[in-house]
Amino acid sequence: MPGFVNSSAVRSSKTMHQIVVVGSIALDSIETPQGKRENALGGSSTYFSLSSSHYVKTCLVGVAGTDFPQSALDLLKKHHIDLEGLDIKEGKTFRWGVRYKNNMNKRDTLYTELNVFENFQPSLPLSYRNSPFLFLGNIHPNLQLQVLNQMNNKPLVALDTMNLWIDISRDSLYNVISKVDILFINEDEIRQLNHTSNVFEAARKTLQHGPKLLIVKRGENGAILFNKETLFIIPAYPVENVVDPTGAGDSFAGGFMGYLATKNPENLTLNDYKMAMVHGTVMASFLVEAFSIERLLTLTPEEITQRVDSFLTMICVN
Amino acid sequence: MPGFVNSSAVRSSKTMHQIVVVGSIALDSIETPQGKRENALGGSSTYFSLSSSHYVKTCLVGVAGTDFPQSALDLLKKHHIDLEGLDIKEGKTFRWGVRYKNNMNKRDTLYTELNVFENFQPSLPLSYRNSPFLFLGNIHPNLQLQVLNQMNNKPLVALDTMNLWIDISRDSLYNVISKVDILFINEDEIRQLNHTSNVFEAARKTLQHGPKLLIVKRGENGAILFNKETLFIIPAYPVENVVDPTGAGDSFAGGFMGYLATKNPENLTLNDYKMAMVHGTVMASFLVEAFSIERLLTLTPEEITQRVDSFLTMICVN
Repeated sequence: MPGFVNSSAVRSSKTMHQIVVVGSIALDSIETPQGKRENALGGSSTYFSLSSSHYVKTCLVGVAGTDFPQSALDLLKKHHIDLEGLDIKEGKTFRWGVRYKNNMNKRDTLYTELNVFENFQPSLPLSYRNSPFLFLGNIHPNLQLQVLNQMNNKPLVALDTMNLWIDISRDSLYNVISKVDILFINEDEIRQLNHTSNVFEAARKTLQHGPKLLIVKRGENGAILFNKETLFIIPAYPVENVVDPTGAGDSFAGGFMGYLATKNPENLTLNDYKMAMVHGTVMASFLVEAFSIERLLTLTPEEITQRVDSFLTMICVN
Repeated sequence: MPGFVNSSAVRSSKTMHQIVVVGSIALDSIETPQGKRENALGGSSTYFSLSSSHYVKTCLVGVAGTDFPQSALDLLKKHHIDLEGLDIKEGKTFRWGVRYKNNMNKRDTLYTELNVFENFQPSLPLSYRNSPFLFLGNIHPNLQLQVLNQMNNKPLVALDTMNLWIDISRDSLYNVISKVDILFINEDEIRQLNHTSNVFEAARKTLQHGPKLLIVKRGENGAILFNKETLFIIPAYPVENVVDPTGAGDSFAGGFMGYLATKNPENLTLNDYKMAMVHGTVMASFLVEAFSIERLLTLTPEEITQRVDSFLTMICVN
């Protein structure tokens, strides 16, 4: 079993430093200018957990079908991922097909078969309900709220969403956003959510709805962290040969939350959040170097630490 | 006369810290979604000098027509700009008309009247020929070389160019590039110059042609500094209300070179270049807040220092 990244945090107990993540589990068909994969392990919670599990134990809540391969289960377990919250239902796993255009900025969804994911009713094992960190991956806002309400404590909660929920469940989305600490959202979505093309205006409006922090994801242009007082702008790590961008946003969130979860959630500083942005960026940069989750499987703590250090010299002034 | 930005540099003499800039001087007609200006002061050397002159004395080499307003000459003089190298020729000043589309990323050139600029033959006054810093603004590469050859010493030389010269004078451009220290070029141009869509590959190839440093300008996505060993990525300063992006690249170069010129050119470190990127970014951010050169006229050293400090907290991790 691979070791954790050493972030100079004191791990007082295993329970203290663990994350619960809820989201999709999928088998993807991916085609990019660099090649293709069939039945590749995918889904937001998979990408997130294989990223965050490099930092802390990660507890996965999701649903898969009876066609979900045993090898995938073994692989997740091997990578510090607790599967007590994984429900295996009679039927097929969520399947998604995608084809990327030449510059990787545009993609066509070839098909979306929800299968067992269509009636997903997330239920948290008792052992998950005191976790100090919770990530609500991109699922219906009502389900995100349902998970949040199952927690016994008040964890540090981050939420991701997508244009679909802004379109069809705006009120439910605003409701759950008002109860979380951190919102991950991409640049187009935050414009859509606030009916404005101006990202700064959109960020201000969104922060009024409750979250303490907002992370606007900008793909190859990096990300911006906003709170009510300030902002932190980070570029993407320069990857010369992007093989497959699928899951970059979830791996970013996994690195971000994974790094935070090595700290005491009561004492997080702005600089901790900035370093979490760095770790998120680095994890996303590794992810896109290979298809599906492949690069996250071979990644070592030393490689992560080395890239973090190298990235810091690329963005910081002494 | 406004004061200089204090960059904690020791100014041993006025001659020590001065820049020579050669480039266009124009009267622009500008239309953006925010309004319009007729006969506005423009041109690469104007934007550059009004930016660099916030740091050091700037010696301008250029040509204008007899229609060039006395008020513009007075304004340049008032801002530490030495006009001994400005040639006033019988005829009309270079005129350029531009209209920006809604998102400011696209623009239509309405007209280009070269006028006296067509036969520009730059000639450096003797008092300019020992300057330690030289900026070769975007003119024909043969003219850039002609200016370089007029220098008595070996100054630190930076060069800017454009797609036109890559198209029609590639060999001349490579020749002059091989003799300079720093090349400013935008993302599309460096791809065009190297026949590759990959900016990193293009950067490596370009550095093999001679320049020690390469600065790839990426508009609203900031800029990247490359040398043979490393790179430094800087985002644009977040300007909420861009009024007119004309001249942003030249103001960036002006802030970059202006900051460097407060230092000893023999002892420049990577961190000095990083700070120069910060100053360039900040000067470009002020410039785009108003039409033409207007914002550079009211700018104070305190405003520059304050924005530099605030920007550093937006991009750096402690």
